[in-house]
Amino acid sequence: MDKSSLETLLKRLLDGTLTLPETLDQLHSFPAETVRDACLDHQRLLRTGIPEVIYGEAKSAEQIVTIARAMLDKKGPLLVTRVDSHKAMLIVEQLPQLTYHHQARLLTGPRTASGPPDVRGTILVICAGTSDIAIAEEARLTAEHLGNPVQAIYDAGVAGLHRLLAHQEKLRDASAIIVVAGMEGALPSVVGGLVSCPVIGVPTSVGYGTGAGGFAALLGMLNSCAPGLAVVNIDNGFGAGCLAAAINRNR
Amino acid sequence: MDKSSLETLLKRLLDGTLTLPETLDQLHSFPAETVRDACLDHQRLLRTGIPEVIYGEAKSAEQIVTIARAMLDKKGPLLVTRVDSHKAMLIVEQLPQLTYHHQARLLTGPRTASGPPDVRGTILVICAGTSDIAIAEEARLTAEHLGNPVQAIYDAGVAGLHRLLAHQEKLRDASAIIVVAGMEGALPSVVGGLVSCPVIGVPTSVGYGTGAGGFAALLGMLNSCAPGLAVVNIDNGFGAGCLAAAINRNR
Amino acid sequence: MDKSSLETLLKRLLDGTLTLPETLDQLHSFPAETVRDACLDHQRLLRTGIPEVIYGEAKSAEQIVTIARAMLDKKGPLLVTRVDSHKAMLIVEQLPQLTYHHQARLLTGPRTASGPPDVRGTILVICAGTSDIAIAEEARLTAEHLGNPVQAIYDAGVAGLHRLLAHQEKLRDASAIIVVAGMEGALPSVVGGLVSCPVIGVPTSVGYGTGAGGFAALLGMLNSCAPGLAVVNIDNGFGAGCLAAAINRNR
Amino acid sequence: MDKSSLETLLKRLLDGTLTLPETLDQLHSFPAETVRDACLDHQRLLRTGIPEVIYGEAKSAEQIVTIARAMLDKKGPLLVTRVDSHKAMLIVEQLPQLTYHHQARLLTGPRTASGPPDVRGTILVICAGTSDIAIAEEARLTAEHLGNPVQAIYDAGVAGLHRLLAHQEKLRDASAIIVVAGMEGALPSVVGGLVSCPVIGVPTSVGYGTGAGGFAALLGMLNSCAPGLAVVNIDNGFGAGCLAAAINRNR
Amino acid sequence: MDKSSLETLLKRLLDGTLTLPETLDQLHSFPAETVRDACLDHQRLLRTGIPEVIYGEAKSAEQIVTIARAMLDKKGPLLVTRVDSHKAMLIVEQLPQLTYHHQARLLTGPRTASGPPDVRGTILVICAGTSDIAIAEEARLTAEHLGNPVQAIYDAGVAGLHRLLAHQEKLRDASAIIVVAGMEGALPSVVGGLVSCPVIGVPTSVGYGTGAGGFAALLGMLNSCAPGLAVVNIDNGFGAGCLAAAINRNR
Amino acid sequence: MDKSSLETLLKRLLDGTLTLPETLDQLHSFPAETVRDACLDHQRLLRTGIPEVIYGEAKSAEQIVTIARAMLDKKGPLLVTRVDSHKAMLIVEQLPQLTYHHQARLLTGPRTASGPPDVRGTILVICAGTSDIAIAEEARLTAEHLGNPVQAIYDAGVAGLHRLLAHQEKLRDASAIIVVAGMEGALPSVVGGLVSCPVIGVPTSVGYGTGAGGFAALLGMLNSCAPGLAVVNIDNGFGAGCLAAAINRNR
Amino acid sequence: MDKSSLETLLKRLLDGTLTLPETLDQLHSFPAETVRDACLDHQRLLRTGIPEVIYGEAKSAEQIVTIARAMLDKKGPLLVTRVDSHKAMLIVEQLPQLTYHHQARLLTGPRTASGPPDVRGTILVICAGTSDIAIAEEARLTAEHLGNPVQAIYDAGVAGLHRLLAHQEKLRDASAIIVVAGMEGALPSVVGGLVSCPVIGVPTSVGYGTGAGGFAALLGMLNSCAPGLAVVNIDNGFGAGCLAAAINRNR
Amino acid sequence: MDKSSLETLLKRLLDGTLTLPETLDQLHSFPAETVRDACLDHQRLLRTGIPEVIYGEAKSAEQIVTIARAMLDKKGPLLVTRVDSHKAMLIVEQLPQLTYHHQARLLTGPRTASGPPDVRGTILVICAGTSDIAIAEEARLTAEHLGNPVQAIYDAGVAGLHRLLAHQEKLRDASAIIVVAGMEGALPSVVGGLVSCPVIGVPTSVGYGTGAGGFAALLGMLNSCAPGLAVVNIDNGFGAGCLAAAINRNR
Repeated sequence: MDKSSLETLLKRLLDGTLTLPETLDQLHSFPAETVRDACLDHQRLLRTGIPEVIYGEAKSAEQIVTIARAMLDKKGPLLVTRVDSHKAMLIVEQLPQLTYHHQARLLTGPRTASGPPDVRGTILVICAGTSDIAIAEEARLTAEHLGNPVQAIYDAGVAGLHRLLAHQEKLRDASAIIVVAGMEGALPSVVGGLVSCPVIGVPTSVGYGTGAGGFAALLGMLNSCAPGLAVVNIDNGFGAGCLAAAINRNR
Repeated sequence: MDKSSLETLLKRLLDGTLTLPETLDQLHSFPAETVRDACLDHQRLLRTGIPEVIYGEAKSAEQIVTIARAMLDKKGPLLVTRVDSHKAMLIVEQLPQLTYHHQARLLTGPRTASGPPDVRGTILVICAGTSDIAIAEEARLTAEHLGNPVQAIYDAGVAGLHRLLAHQEKLRDASAIIVVAGMEGALPSVVGGLVSCPVIGVPTSVGYGTGAGGFAALLGMLNSCAPGLAVVNIDNGFGAGCLAAAINRNR
Repeated sequence: MDKSSLETLLKRLLDGTLTLPETLDQLHSFPAETVRDACLDHQRLLRTGIPEVIYGEAKSAEQIVTIARAMLDKKGPLLVTRVDSHKAMLIVEQLPQLTYHHQARLLTGPRTASGPPDVRGTILVICAGTSDIAIAEEARLTAEHLGNPVQAIYDAGVAGLHRLLAHQEKLRDASAIIVVAGMEGALPSVVGGLVSCPVIGVPTSVGYGTGAGGFAALLGMLNSCAPGLAVVNIDNGFGAGCLAAAINRNR
Repeated sequence: MDKSSLETLLKRLLDGTLTLPETLDQLHSFPAETVRDACLDHQRLLRTGIPEVIYGEAKSAEQIVTIARAMLDKKGPLLVTRVDSHKAMLIVEQLPQLTYHHQARLLTGPRTASGPPDVRGTILVICAGTSDIAIAEEARLTAEHLGNPVQAIYDAGVAGLHRLLAHQEKLRDASAIIVVAGMEGALPSVVGGLVSCPVIGVPTSVGYGTGAGGFAALLGMLNSCAPGLAVVNIDNGFGAGCLAAAINRNR
Repeated sequence: MDKSSLETLLKRLLDGTLTLPETLDQLHSFPAETVRDACLDHQRLLRTGIPEVIYGEAKSAEQIVTIARAMLDKKGPLLVTRVDSHKAMLIVEQLPQLTYHHQARLLTGPRTASGPPDVRGTILVICAGTSDIAIAEEARLTAEHLGNPVQAIYDAGVAGLHRLLAHQEKLRDASAIIVVAGMEGALPSVVGGLVSCPVIGVPTSVGYGTGAGGFAALLGMLNSCAPGLAVVNIDNGFGAGCLAAAINRNR
Repeated sequence: MDKSSLETLLKRLLDGTLTLPETLDQLHSFPAETVRDACLDHQRLLRTGIPEVIYGEAKSAEQIVTIARAMLDKKGPLLVTRVDSHKAMLIVEQLPQLTYHHQARLLTGPRTASGPPDVRGTILVICAGTSDIAIAEEARLTAEHLGNPVQAIYDAGVAGLHRLLAHQEKLRDASAIIVVAGMEGALPSVVGGLVSCPVIGVPTSVGYGTGAGGFAALLGMLNSCAPGLAVVNIDNGFGAGCLAAAINRNR
Repeated sequence: MDKSSLETLLKRLLDGTLTLPETLDQLHSFPAETVRDACLDHQRLLRTGIPEVIYGEAKSAEQIVTIARAMLDKKGPLLVTRVDSHKAMLIVEQLPQLTYHHQARLLTGPRTASGPPDVRGTILVICAGTSDIAIAEEARLTAEHLGNPVQAIYDAGVAGLHRLLAHQEKLRDASAIIVVAGMEGALPSVVGGLVSCPVIGVPTSVGYGTGAGGFAALLGMLNSCAPGLAVVNIDNGFGAGCLAAAINRNR
Repeated sequence: MDKSSLETLLKRLLDGTLTLPETLDQLHSFPAETVRDACLDHQRLLRTGIPEVIYGEAKSAEQIVTIARAMLDKKGPLLVTRVDSHKAMLIVEQLPQLTYHHQARLLTGPRTASGPPDVRGTILVICAGTSDIAIAEEARLTAEHLGNPVQAIYDAGVAGLHRLLAHQEKLRDASAIIVVAGMEGALPSVVGGLVSCPVIGVPTSVGYGTGAGGFAALLGMLNSCAPGLAVVNIDNGFGAGCLAAAINRNR
């Protein structure tokens, strides 16, 4: 309930359309709608272009269908993260308007009609090897779904870093760069030494031995010699996409 | 060595001022200056307004004086982090042009004459309690030293969150917000639910039992329900200041 | 051996039905029955309404059937935790009087004839998302099986917190609230700020990266800024149900 | 702002004492006061008898004096936790109305005039050895300061468990029991096997080797075979006191 | 090469059967046979009755058959640990003289003809619940295979502790007691308080949440208030059996 | 309360000295005395020769004096562990009958008049370097105080292992061997390969980097290739002494 | 771009074949080629004989085929690590010139025609048990593929250490020794005490309980009493092979 | 006892100087001297030029003096590691022939008269910042003390990497390079990309937050993308020096 609808409410009280008890009842939901903001604010999300997001990992296909259908009824944008291909198949059977992105394990709803948001520039997503592409794709699709132009450099395993440097314009033009890396997580530091825009490091769980689970990559990024590296949770491509979108938003 | 000096070099080869071997010798240092960029790039730092930084924790006062003096001779800006008050006293005795910031444990050099950088807006630094002020101050002074206008909300312990909300304009006007928090590290999530600009969480080592060392706060921020929270290392106010400055930079 | 049977024993000694050595022999088992209390006290459990519980995870269907049959023969109430659906099917085939609760992975026996225990009020179970429902159900069914009226708020994923606040009466009326949450585990702190009754936090293993396994949620709850939050083991819905029942018991 | 003051506000709008813009301005602070509740709610705390609490560990004596003076001016009750004796001396010199509790490292303000809260019974605090007394005292004084009658059993090291059992009435009469234990943290399980009221385990950092820091005790309590044990953070006597008070409150 | 064969060697040198160089050559293998003892001493093992042991977990059925056949050819006793039932089936098909113990996941060879070793008494194996029986069986069969009389108390889940105390003679008569326990690992401490013989605690990986993997049980046993508890690796029933046999050996 | 006093009690009931209610009251304390055994059994300790032990680390000198004085009044043996030299000085001033062992940080009371216990043989204490002597001494003095003949091999740093082998008789004669080691904790495995008696490994916190705190040594011992190694907590010389005494006791 | 091609470039500038802008453009790629070296230097790899390596674990068969085909087109040597047998089958179907090594989980390309590199001697690979052979084979094949003569000692489980000592010549002749070990990881220390050449320890994830994952072995090797042991990541046979090759290279 | 003295022994048996029992007695110490090699082999150390080393951290000045004096009497080389300056002062007072190296915290004995060992080339020690110099110096002095020519590049904090590249000849000429680094430990990977000789990474405990203790640096090096990096324990400059010496030794 924004200021104008609050004003309308009071005016209706003043002109007698609403009684005092009725007005009090309506105001009763204020705290609810405010506190709800602490974790999940429909209004803010829609206002800023971030769609409703369903964390799909621990939900059944049925649960996801139910929630997604409700969202689609509200005509809102839709993003379901961490959906494996079997579960996705079951969902898309019932909600054919959804698109499944296999590598990113994402389900996206139809793009809403609203025009593109006002952005500062292009977001760049980089990853070192083919093993990290799944998370990089999650980041790329999230940022794109939030209305940002996105470019990506991860087309070829071992030659990746080389191609990266071959495309210095992309590096120079980006308003925010997402770097996805496993193992010792050194790539974001390297990129951070080449550009002046904000760099977001996404550690991945690719690795073995002491590198398994992505903790070595996470620690490497948190202790990077490149000052000012932004770090998100291991394998959290979705969060990196959101952060890049927030940076790229023109205020 | 930038493009224009490279051009000058080649012209001197063309006009005979330099021989071919002399030119090759000078070009020999190219890789050095380039690779050096991987971790520490003078040119880029000066260009983007980020001053030389000395990590003071594990250095003696003598070592710091020697390095700082060399930097001051180059007329560059100067920042020394994590200097305790005793060490600072010894340093300032010999380098009286430095200023010591007691809570932030920072030494800063004289501001350079160059005009203010082109920034998008104001950076806001928030912390929950008086216990986190040291790290918040490190972030604030770093961002300020990089040429950003900075505001802070942490003047009064327990009533802090209240005042925060009393100053919603500051929240609304900020182009980036740094939130410093110990314990379970929930404050950045709360702030992330109130604003649309990028939020940077700095976990602090304030806490005891399972909260000692700041790992509970770090994990809380990495797993926040507020999508897109940027996280830096525990107690890394300096890094948060650099990241906020990168976001606030007008490209 | 309770006080009355002890009295009977001594009376039989006094009237000569038992000799002194025979009485000593019977008393010999006292320590056994007492020490047994340290971990498992049949008498106390029955007296307080807590049924026999079988931890089903690492047992075969055959083992569970054997133990459960013995308990049912004693006409006691019965609860088997952490039984997957395949194992449950095998068990219910042989013990059709048991009911399987799919989400909670619980098997419960027939309710005993004894009247409801004397309780203070209603227990409320809350969880944030559909992913945590399994553990929340374990808590709810446990508390209910112990004779408590229980209400639950977790009918709809993302809109959950909103509905929670829409039902402030439930919050106000609860004598104890169980809050089940994964990720950074912030929900119990939020609830703890809204109510004055005891709040029990149950961290769940829902999450990924640094949140995998539930340790981030556990640490978040142990370091909560809401003073006096009670915490139980990760995924321990059963324990939370028992604790809530103990709080709700009218002495 | 409760319902009646909200009603008053609207009535003043209706009778013309306030203009529509003035009313909107006053309603503007609603979200603030509500969200503030998420972490720190003055009204609720005073209402439920929980005093303002200052976490003293990472604050200077001057900072504590400033905050405490403000609270005393508001005539509120006062509790400062984790204050070492040197810092306490400096504080009490300036605020002689405060009392320092040496073992518990607590500073308490004068008891307020309000009558005792309506409680269910007596809280019992138990600890195994003299090494754990500091944390046990923190729990005891906190519960007492919140208006609860408290009894304690930890007067004599090795013989402690013996005396405990010698005072079975205290165990039987308690409405909540706080058990403080280091090492493997087994005592709460033992007590949990003897009583039917809620038991709160407080792991302490007393121990060495793998027991150092209190993690063995914490894990022992979280995995206790006594179902329904409530656990708080390591060394968190204050939190245990608050939880016991919440359980003991007559609704 | 023992002392007598060394003496024989020197005598052959003295009587001219061997030349000096030939003697030196034979002595050359001394270090080898000695150092080998550091980890694996055939002679000592046979002498003390400990059979050759094959760690079966990471070996293929073919590898185990090859090694076992070689051992059987040497007529030595044989023990293969951690063999799952499928692998065991493949092995027994080819080596029908081996016996597979399903719960203990052990393969044992035929008992050798040598008479029973000289032992002090009976070894007792205890476990709390049916979930720990696999490891308890590994311990029991190992000790038995080493020639010790063994008794076990773990025939019935929840009622186990009760039966334990009902058989106090077994407790009193044991020369060493192995106690297998998961969760918080408290049972060895309880048994340690009841007997005067050495108690060996075996933590098991049975548990969930913070108890998963057995670390809570391990820490509980290492920090036990029962002084002098011997601890072995998590799930190491085999090691516990060997230790009990060493204690029970009459020197 | 042992069997004879129980018999006396029943006889007094039979001869009328006690009424039935009085007898029931006295029997009421049975559980207390039994459960107490779970952790601390005076009778058993005295019976088996293990003295009362005070864990001195977290206690003040005054607290230790009070407890020790009570024990000395009961003429029992006395052992105070982990007492630093300053605290020891304050204690011995008031209790001059105590002896302080500087390296072992132990205080021992006067030896009681009772004759030596019936033991199997000699206990041997070995440590690799001078750095581990403190813990080795704690083990040695504990075992000695419990009435065991003890020998030690740790007189000279680097040459220690050499001397060990020079004294193979000591190795052969020992009925139990305690091996104290830091770093990677390999020494107990080596000794375990040389002897057939039980070997007790005590990891110490001597080490740096990943070896700091003793966890590398602990893990090394728990995963030793020497089957049947008994392990105690890091730096727990006292526990090792008790375990060796239990093994060495002639039943 | 090496010095000679740089010289050529400048000469073409001097003789007018290239204009100044064209020369600047070509020099522009310098940083790229240099920085690329930071992580992946084609030239250096080929020069030193280390082939292109594809980390196969997280890649699909299709991805591997695509990358491998590109490499084979360049006539370079080829190594694909961590390929399970199913994936290998799919790859070899399409690239029959590759050879799959089952135990090592490696795919190797055809050996290139270039003569053997100039090496110092033979590399020796040792492992304790059959369980570690997979990693040992990865090391062996890697070193061999890099042109080194390699010998291996791990033909027979339990008797391995014995055979090792039986082949002291191999130990004496090796220019570098790779020792692969799980459990407590003691074997590299033992070998380190027998030879004077560099020893490389490879911890394996073979083990259970606290040994699971290989951390006990890793810590054992990092804290070894054998000074100068080189350690690589858990299960990193490939890295050990590369390190041994670097040591064995004749400069 | 080497082969020649063994031959002498047998000859004395043959010529009657020794009886058979006397010879057997002398041979009895063989195993001792051999097994001793497992951890500490005087002969091998002297033979390979590695001096006796005393780990000074946990030893008193008196203990060190005693051991060092014994070594000096044997005219052997001497190295004492991890000696703080106060302890060093006390030792040097009594043993003035020792030299204390303040930064490296090393005490070295007089160089022995033996000529330089046969080495392959020069060892290079690199560290990033002045904070890591202590550990780098420990490595440098150790390698030097073992008879190797050593060069070092760490004279100037921030400009270090630049100078490194300015001295590419040193990089090219080194036969082994030790790279000391804290924080995220990336420097060894960078150096590994520039050279073909073996690179040894030494993680240091310099860092804060998640970098404290050196684990981030250790994990970064173990998971490096530079294949074949050798890693030693955190802060283990001494071990790196020994490893480099072993690599540099001409066989």
